[in-house]
Parts: sequence; structure tokens; C-alpha cells
Amino acid sequence: MVARFFSDNAAPVHPQVMAALADANHADTAYDGDGWSQRLDAALGDVFETRVTALWTATGTSANGIALAALTRGWQSVLCHREAHIEVDECGAPALFTGGGKLDLLDGPGAKFDGAAVKARLAQIRKDVHQVQPAAISITNASEYGLAWRAAEVAAMGDVARAHGLALHMDGARFANAIAFTGDSPADVTWRAGVDALSFGFVKNGGMNAECLIFFGDCPPGARELRKRSGHLQSKGRFLAAQILAMLDGDLWLANARAANAAAMLIGAAAGSRLLYPVEANEVFLRLSTAEAAHLRAAGYDFYDWGAGAARLVTAWHHLPGDVAPLAAAIRAL
Amino acid sequence: MVARFFSDNAAPVHPQVMAALADANHADTAYDGDGWSQRLDAALGDVFETRVTALWTATGTSANGIALAALTRGWQSVLCHREAHIEVDECGAPALFTGGGKLDLLDGPGAKFDGAAVKARLAQIRKDVHQVQPAAISITNASEYGLAWRAAEVAAMGDVARAHGLALHMDGARFANAIAFTGDSPADVTWRAGVDALSFGFVKNGGMNAECLIFFGDCPPGARELRKRSGHLQSKGRFLAAQILAMLDGDLWLANARAANAAAMLIGAAAGSRLLYPVEANEVFLRLSTAEAAHLRAAGYDFYDWGAGAARLVTAWHHLPGDVAPLAAAIRAL
Amino acid sequence: MVARFFSDNAAPVHPQVMAALADANHADTAYDGDGWSQRLDAALGDVFETRVTALWTATGTSANGIALAALTRGWQSVLCHREAHIEVDECGAPALFTGGGKLDLLDGPGAKFDGAAVKARLAQIRKDVHQVQPAAISITNASEYGLAWRAAEVAAMGDVARAHGLALHMDGARFANAIAFTGDSPADVTWRAGVDALSFGFVKNGGMNAECLIFFGDCPPGARELRKRSGHLQSKGRFLAAQILAMLDGDLWLANARAANAAAMLIGAAAGSRLLYPVEANEVFLRLSTAEAAHLRAAGYDFYDWGAGAARLVTAWHHLPGDVAPLAAAIRAL
Amino acid sequence: MVARFFSDNAAPVHPQVMAALADANHADTAYDGDGWSQRLDAALGDVFETRVTALWTATGTSANGIALAALTRGWQSVLCHREAHIEVDECGAPALFTGGGKLDLLDGPGAKFDGAAVKARLAQIRKDVHQVQPAAISITNASEYGLAWRAAEVAAMGDVARAHGLALHMDGARFANAIAFTGDSPADVTWRAGVDALSFGFVKNGGMNAECLIFFGDCPPGARELRKRSGHLQSKGRFLAAQILAMLDGDLWLANARAANAAAMLIGAAAGSRLLYPVEANEVFLRLSTAEAAHLRAAGYDFYDWGAGAARLVTAWHHLPGDVAPLAAAIRAL
Repeated sequence: MVARFFSDNAAPVHPQVMAALADANHADTAYDGDGWSQRLDAALGDVFETRVTALWTATGTSANGIALAALTRGWQSVLCHREAHIEVDECGAPALFTGGGKLDLLDGPGAKFDGAAVKARLAQIRKDVHQVQPAAISITNASEYGLAWRAAEVAAMGDVARAHGLALHMDGARFANAIAFTGDSPADVTWRAGVDALSFGFVKNGGMNAECLIFFGDCPPGARELRKRSGHLQSKGRFLAAQILAMLDGDLWLANARAANAAAMLIGAAAGSRLLYPVEANEVFLRLSTAEAAHLRAAGYDFYDWGAGAARLVTAWHHLPGDVAPLAAAIRAL
Repeated sequence: MVARFFSDNAAPVHPQVMAALADANHADTAYDGDGWSQRLDAALGDVFETRVTALWTATGTSANGIALAALTRGWQSVLCHREAHIEVDECGAPALFTGGGKLDLLDGPGAKFDGAAVKARLAQIRKDVHQVQPAAISITNASEYGLAWRAAEVAAMGDVARAHGLALHMDGARFANAIAFTGDSPADVTWRAGVDALSFGFVKNGGMNAECLIFFGDCPPGARELRKRSGHLQSKGRFLAAQILAMLDGDLWLANARAANAAAMLIGAAAGSRLLYPVEANEVFLRLSTAEAAHLRAAGYDFYDWGAGAARLVTAWHHLPGDVAPLAAAIRAL
Repeated sequence: MVARFFSDNAAPVHPQVMAALADANHADTAYDGDGWSQRLDAALGDVFETRVTALWTATGTSANGIALAALTRGWQSVLCHREAHIEVDECGAPALFTGGGKLDLLDGPGAKFDGAAVKARLAQIRKDVHQVQPAAISITNASEYGLAWRAAEVAAMGDVARAHGLALHMDGARFANAIAFTGDSPADVTWRAGVDALSFGFVKNGGMNAECLIFFGDCPPGARELRKRSGHLQSKGRFLAAQILAMLDGDLWLANARAANAAAMLIGAAAGSRLLYPVEANEVFLRLSTAEAAHLRAAGYDFYDWGAGAARLVTAWHHLPGDVAPLAAAIRAL
Repeated sequence: MVARFFSDNAAPVHPQVMAALADANHADTAYDGDGWSQRLDAALGDVFETRVTALWTATGTSANGIALAALTRGWQSVLCHREAHIEVDECGAPALFTGGGKLDLLDGPGAKFDGAAVKARLAQIRKDVHQVQPAAISITNASEYGLAWRAAEVAAMGDVARAHGLALHMDGARFANAIAFTGDSPADVTWRAGVDALSFGFVKNGGMNAECLIFFGDCPPGARELRKRSGHLQSKGRFLAAQILAMLDGDLWLANARAANAAAMLIGAAAGSRLLYPVEANEVFLRLSTAEAAHLRAAGYDFYDWGAGAARLVTAWHHLPGDVAPLAAAIRAL
């Protein structure tokens, strides 16, 4: 029996989400006209302490794509990190959704970048029709290396965005884990810090197949049309809304993220000086030789190699301390 | 309490599908590497008596879009009926998926058209670079008016397609209902009749949010990439595969379709001379005055107006004869 | 020696345009920074009695594409005639330029349609995200059958457009011929009648390869970017601007159009009851049997068949009355 | 009077090209059915010693876009240099033409890169549907820093391309200058070295507005359609073909390039140790302080700053040694 730490996508669906699917299982109106879908804006408005437009969709890739298409036009670009999911793991989805828009890649440690990186890049771009002009910034929170953005960091980026007329998107596939780590309020890390749109992830955190694209304020023109046009307006949408509502109910999303983070912390503590990045969410990146990786795998642990001599381990909501203790011990014993 | 006959999208999910979701709810590999997804090709190969490539996706719109993109290029067109779902109900999805491809609209009774209509249209198109050249035909089975294509009809269309170098796509959102009506084998209505790709619908027939795009034979270049790129490669794909497998298990898809068709037949029999089309699937189109429609609605029945003086009623897998008997009586009593 | 009446594209370039190319042939700044390009807005502003943004481009197809992309978004549609050039003769260019936008086809005699046709079509479209929503109307002046729009007709269409929140585009590949026929002022037929963008054609009227896309007022966001992005921002743009300025100089565009129209009138008069449409520009559509067509061709006249039993003859700026007199006589003699 | 060295786009059109336009100025068939266009394949086949498909188009941007669209699909990428024209100077045109394709950026001195850079990048790309897979390599000859590719260098790149299943495109906006410098045969630098498509530039070398996209062998599916669809099939195409034929006649293209190169060599010799790159075509990149740049400009020379402390000077076919001698002297005197 393999203990899977290769991705939080491997985790099961939380029982409360399963229960919500069962509860939603009677006839209702189609698409997003049902009662569950109609409650989403209010429920997420409570979480974010402001009026929001919430669109369920099946995947983070589609949430990101619709968000970026709403914030840019096809002849423009989005500034993002070189290792951002939208750049390296979505098969070019942003270009499909935006109509040929470009990702303009920035560098920075831990898959984060700061306002200085943005300004340095902007300074290189001639303001003419020959060069693709940026229209938005996209940051990932937690980052692809499991680093959480503090509210003040996002606010600094929001200031840079506003100063240069750029919109700000946050890919929050692991937003819950970041919030659970920093303790910042969802509002402070998003719209109060200048974020225009958030891809709020639930699938990695106990959901089945419902993510939520959130626009702070009104729905931008075309976002609902693009959800339909890209095949993401599901006819039985109530089953997506029900998942999200279940995750929000009693702050299950935070409880799940805390559990996942705690499990990662245990592994991280065991990794000690092997750690490549501090553990601020549910991902652990550590130095691991080929022999050590083989040893751990032989012991029944499944994870990703991360280039030569390194590995990524990801925990999820269902990992109890007791589940990860053997892994932590095995790492310590290397 | 309203009895919903406005769409089969309103229906609940079948208990066996719900059970399959519960069964699939433990950790597994992500995307389509899991055991359920890996069994799809074989399971559908059994249904169609040939080797197939089966891609789960959340919606019929995305299945259609990926199929058409695989069969055409952006500078080409797809011949389809003027009232086809891809033309009137997908917000232009085929153009997004194909990269600007065009739908070239044909006419015919009951949202069906025949080879003569195809040939007549082809004769109007100059073979030069100024005019968009057709590359595929798309038919809907059952049609938008609930008419089932017989195997011989599809084969005749397949002959026309081959003769003119066109691919043939079947939008089978209600494929199950058509098969349940005609009794033809799935193979005879599809690949043996020249169909290259089938969007096999399950959501209207008891599923939750899993449809299946089927290519007969190998997967065309780009189809998997486009599924990913359009945000339709779900990370917990096992929950889509599990739905489809549950629908295939013991031919639940056929049993559900037969139940829905039977309910529609009862309503159709009551409608008598009001019927606009024969009932060959789970949809009933009938003449209904504004006053009569209001009367039925006051009695608790929910349905779509279909232009002036007509209405559409749709049944689903969960409608027992006893459920539709009062509606049938109410229609008779008009 | 063949006398070519198959298209005004066959005509030579006017000597004054050739002279302007020679005049422009010294070193200057690139793209549209040169003196000729910089004079375009003012020169066309004089013609249209208002402030305009004028973008040269090589073809009517690109002018139309950039115009429609500026007035719509990819998930929207453009209402146009079923026989409009953008629908039947541009290989789907509007879909490429707009990012998958759709043409929604209307009918009407002589490739014109009226406000009633627009309103009837709009009434059929549900206002939801499932159906593609129109954002613009495109009319062709002179129409594909050589019919000129009167200022009042355009104004009526403009009223309908405004009432329904639609933009109005005019494909003016033969705008000069229409103006020459009606005697209306360019302003009255365009912006005063509600036209937002005009593709003003010069190539068929004595130019070599310069058309002019005119926006009445400011340049819409993205139009210049799309001209560049579609490969239409020529580096030696001065040679396009110079052509247009030469055509405007001394109203050469009107003189050329009058000459072409006069030649068409002579042919039309000869055609008499054979005429399928009144001659209001430089095109003559007439009934012509296969034998008659063969007879004319044997006599050295080149033209298009127009379906069975009909033909199209097109005159151009260089046709003197004496050039068409033999053809007119030949038609009379049939 | 300013002496323009900012771009070869500033140069006038060669008298023989002007004469060819005059010669072509009588009525003929439209698009590319005329005699000039019909002679292109043979004329360029002579230059390249093989059968070619030659498509005229107005700009290098459109030639590149059509070429890349023919060699890749929208979900794929093109490996090119970070400073390639297609990346930094075409407003994202490749994404428009290819339907959302991506440019994957490589580094290397002088805007060239070698097979090792390609292989290193390929090694970083996981072979799955999550990451965009490269389908082609694009190199620029002469490069954006005026460096000419030797036949052996291209052949080495062609070997890498073939070994990895990639197509090879050459952006030859200054192909003539490169050939004039290396003395290699056009065949050796292109198809014999594995190049599939060449954007052969004429506009910077004495043409007005005709470039030539060359496919070695048959025309790939869709290339002609995309030329039309992007608005680049000009109706009076004979005026583009005539330009190209005039440039080929008597090897005017080589004579012009030699003249431009010679002028650049004179400036380069004067620049001496200021040179940032060897002069292998018609561009000179040199170190120049702000004060020195101001001094040269005050003396009547126009050129581009190239970042801080550097400048680009470009010569063209019309620069006689006597024209550049004063500039060379001024640089020496700095």
C-alpha cells in the first residue's frame, strides 16, 4: 500500500462535501439558476467581507483562463512568474482563453516576485504597438513552492499594479493553505490589497471538482459568456455550488487547510536542513539524493522528483499527524 | 411543488452513480492516470464493439468542441443543422475550440438533414481560398426535436461524408434515448455508419457531470492537449470516469433512457394530434396555446415555451409512469 | 486580346497614384510615422467633415477584420447579409480577427437588408449566455449587387443599431461608387447616419494596395495593435498613405468612381430587361443564357457567371465610354 | 537634412522595383492568378535550386505568422531567441496566426542560439499534456544583431530539429545581407540545411511592400487559406509579385545587399573597438555614450539608442561609400 504524497489532487473528497452532493441530489433548475448557485455570491461575500461575483467552474485552469481573459485582451500580456502554473502546467490555456494573450515571465525566489521585478520588466518594454503591452499581473498564493503571500506583500504588488494601470489576479489553488498559515483575513490578502480576481481553489482541499472564480464587485463583461463558451457552464451546476457551500460551511476550508499544513510542518521539521523553502502551506521541497528517494519509495512513499537531487511532497486535508509520522521518521533516518 | 419537465438537466443523479462516486472516494493518482479512467477505453470498446479512445469531460459543449477541433482546422467549416445545439446553445464554443472555425447551416425537418441537403450546400461553395471549405458534418442524435437517427440514415450520411472528404461527428447528448428507441446497436449507428467521433452524453441520463468524447480508433493529435488547454482535464478525473463506468455497468444507460422514453411516450400519447414531432426519445413538442400553457403551469407543471403556440416537455430517467400520468391526463383534458 | 469585366480588381492603377508612389520614394521614417501617414487623419477628416482616425491597410479584408474586432468581442456576433463579402469571400477572416466571433446572417434583396430584418432576427435570440449575442451590424455600400445605400436608409439602420445597443460598420469596398451615384455627402452616409467604422476602399477604384479603415472619432482600443499583430503595419507605410492621399487629391476618388459608374450605366442600358438589379454603382448583373455567355466570351469579353443563367460585369475607373460601347452593342445584339 | 541610419525600412525603393511596378500596371487577373504571381515559384526555385512554393505577402510579420502556423498547432510552441523579432517586435502576431501558440525563449550571444541551447531547453520540458510541447525552431538570419548564419551552423540546427521531430523556420528579413556576407548558396543555408520555411525579405533591401514566404516543396495545408483569412491575399497581387521578380532579376537582391553590407563595414571599421558585434550584414551595434550619441545626432545622423551606452546604425542598399564616409569619420573622431 502506497502512501501518496505526490499531490493534494490525490486526496479523497471530504465527507461533508460528499454529503452536500447527496443533499443536492434532487431535481432543480439547470445551469446556475438553482438555489445553491444563487447563494454563492452571498456566501463568498461573507468570507471576503465585500460584494463579490462568484462563478463556479470545474478546474483551476478554467478559473485562471476566464479571469485573465476578463482582465486583458488578446494583444496584451500578463506578468507572472516563470514557474507559475499558468505558464508551466496549463498547456497554454491562457492563450486559448484570452485569444492569443502572452505570459511575460518574471523571476524571483520560491516562485514569488516583487514589485521591483515588475518595474524592471516594464522598463524594458517600449510603449509602442510593436511590443506586447502588459495589462495584468498574476501571482500564485500559496506559490508553486508553497510560500504564502502576506497581506502586506500583496498590497505592495497591488500598489505597483495600480501605478502602472495593471489589473491583479491571484491564482489561489492553495489559497486556503496560505490563509491558514498567515492568519490574514481573506479580504486583506485580496481586494483590500488590490486583487481584482481570485481563482479560489477547493479541489486540492477536500472538494471533488468545483473551484470558484471570484471577481470583487461586478462581473466583468464576457466572463459568464466565456465560461459557457469554453464548456464550463455545467448543466447540473448545483453540484458544484453545493461543494463550495459545503467547504465554506463552518469554515471547513480553513480546517482542512490547517490539517494539511500541520502535516506538512511535521514533514518539514523532519527535513530540517534539507528544506529548500520554508514550509508555509502544504508542500515540502527538500534535498533528496537519488538513493534517498529510492529508499523512501521502497518504504512505500509516493512523491515527485523535483529536478536532480530534490523532491516535492504534498500533504492534504486527510493527513492526520499519525499518517505522516512514519514518513517524518523515515526522512529523519536518512 | 413543481413537477419539472423543462429539461432532463433538471433530473437528479441516479443512485448507482452516487454510489460510484462514493466508491471512488479514496486517494488515487491524478488527472486520468487512475484506475477508473484507465478502464474507460475498454468499457466503451465493449459497448461499441471496437477499439475506441474515450475522453471524459464535464460537458457536452466541451466534448463537441474538442471533437470538432480534432476533425477540422480553424479556416474550415462544419456542416450542421440550423437548430443544432452547437449553433444555438453553446455561445460560439466551436469557434473557440477550433480556432475560428465556422458552422455552415443546413435545414431539414425535425432538426435533421439528409445527404441531399449536404450535397446541395456543397454545390454552392466555390472551391477556392476565398470561401470557407467544409471539413466535417455534425449531426445530433437524438435531434434537437427528439428524433432518433436510424443506422441506415447515419450510414447514408457517412457515405456522403466519405464521398466528399468530410469527417462525421455525432452530438449524442441524448444518444442513449435514441438507441433505446431504435434498438440499433451503438456500433451500427456510429463507426460502422461512418461516424468518426461521438459526444456520448450521460448528464441528461442520470449522470452528474461526466460526458464522454469517443474517437473510434486512435486519439487524434491535439485532442488530449485541447482537453487540458480548455481546462477540462480535471485533477480528480476518477470521479468522472466512475460516473461513466457506473452508467455502463449493467447497461444502466439504456435502462435509464428507456424509462425516460417511456414517460415521454405516455405524454406524447396524451398529446395526440397536438404533437409537432413523433416521440422518438425523451422530448415531447406539442401545440399549446398561451392559455393552455398557463393552465398547465397553474397545475404545477414546468416546461419551456417553444415559440408561439408550442411547448417542449422533457422527461428523464426518474420519471415513473405514475409521475407522468397526471400530466398526461391534464393534457388530455385541455 | 481580352476585355476584362470580371472585376474592378483587374483594373490598372491610376497614373496619379503611380506618380504619388514615385513622389514618396525617398527615405523617411518607418511604419506610420512618416509625413504622408501623418496627414491622413486630416485629409479624411476633410472628406467626412469631422475628426476621424484613419488606418491604412493593404486589403478590405483586413480593414473589415480590424473594424469588426474593434466593435465586438469574440463571444459576440455581427449581423450581416447572407451574401456579404465578410461572409462569403474572406475565408472566415472576421472569426480570426475577432477571436472567434460569429456572423449572423440576414436576408434581403440585392444583398441589402433593412431594420425590420434586424429586429426580426433580434427577436429570435434569447438574451442569455447560451446564445451568441449580436454586438454590431455590418452593411456593404455599394452592396454586393451594386446597390447604393441612400443616407436615409443608413440613418434608419443607425437608429435600429442605437436602439439595440449595436455598433454599425460599413464595408465600403465600393463606397466611392455609391457616393458617386447617390450624390449624398460622405458624412451623411456614415457618421451622421450612425456609422462607427468604415472600410473605405481605394484598390478597386484606381489604387494599388491601400485601403483605409476609418473610425469616426478616437481610435478604439486595440485597433492599432491588431493592425500590427495581423501583419498589416507595413514598414514603408508611406507608400500606402501616399496612394490614399493621391486618391483624395482633387477628389480623384469621385472622378474615378463616376467614370466606372458611367461605363456600367452604358452596359446596363444595353442590358435593358435582362437586368437583375438596377445599376447604382459599377456592377451589372444580368440574365444571360449559357449560349449567350459563350457568345460574349468568344467576342473577347471576360466576366463572371453568377449562378445559372446570370452574369456579373464590373467596370472600373479606366473604362471610357468607347471601351464599353462594343460590349454594350454586343449585349444589345444578343 | 538628416541622414537616416535608424532602419533599412527608411530606405527608398530601388528604381528597378519602381520600374517593375510601372511595367505591371495594366489590367490582369486578380489575386495571384496573374502572370507575375504565376512565375514566382519558378523564379525562386532557380534561386534555391529546388522546387518551392512561394507566397507573396506584404510584411515579414505575416510571412512569419503564416509560416509558423503551417509548422505548428495552437497548443504547441516555437523555440526562438529571446530577442527574436517574432517575440519582441510583432505584437504577438505568432499567437494570432497559430491560434494561441507559444514562443519558448532561448538565450545566446548576438541573438543566435545553438543546438545545445535547444537540447537543454527540451530536457526541461516534461512530455505530457500539461506542458506546451515544442513543434518548431525559428532562427533569424541575419540575426537581430546582424550576425549571419553559416550553412554549417544552420545544418547543425537542422540536425537537432530533425532529431527531435521539430520543424525549422528561418526569418530572413535580412536573408540577402547574410547571403551576401557568407557567400553561401541560398540552398545550402536553407533546405539543404533542414529549413522547412523561409520568410525571405525584400522590403528592407529595396522593395516597397512585398516579402516572400517560401516553403521548400509543397504548400502545407492551410497556408494559402491563412494568407487569405488574415487579409494578406491582395487583389492586385501582381504588384507584389512584380517587385519580387524585379529583385531577383539579375540578382539585384544580392547587389543591393552587398552595397548595404559594404556601407556597414565602413562604419564598423570606424567603430573599431566600440563594436559590440562583428559586422556581418548591414547593422552596426556600437558602444556610444549619451554625450557621443548626442554629438552624432547634432551632426545630422539619425539612429536608435540600444539600451544605455549603445546604439544601432543600419545601412541600406542606397548608401554609397561616399554617403557613409562622413559618418565613419565622425565616429572615428569621437
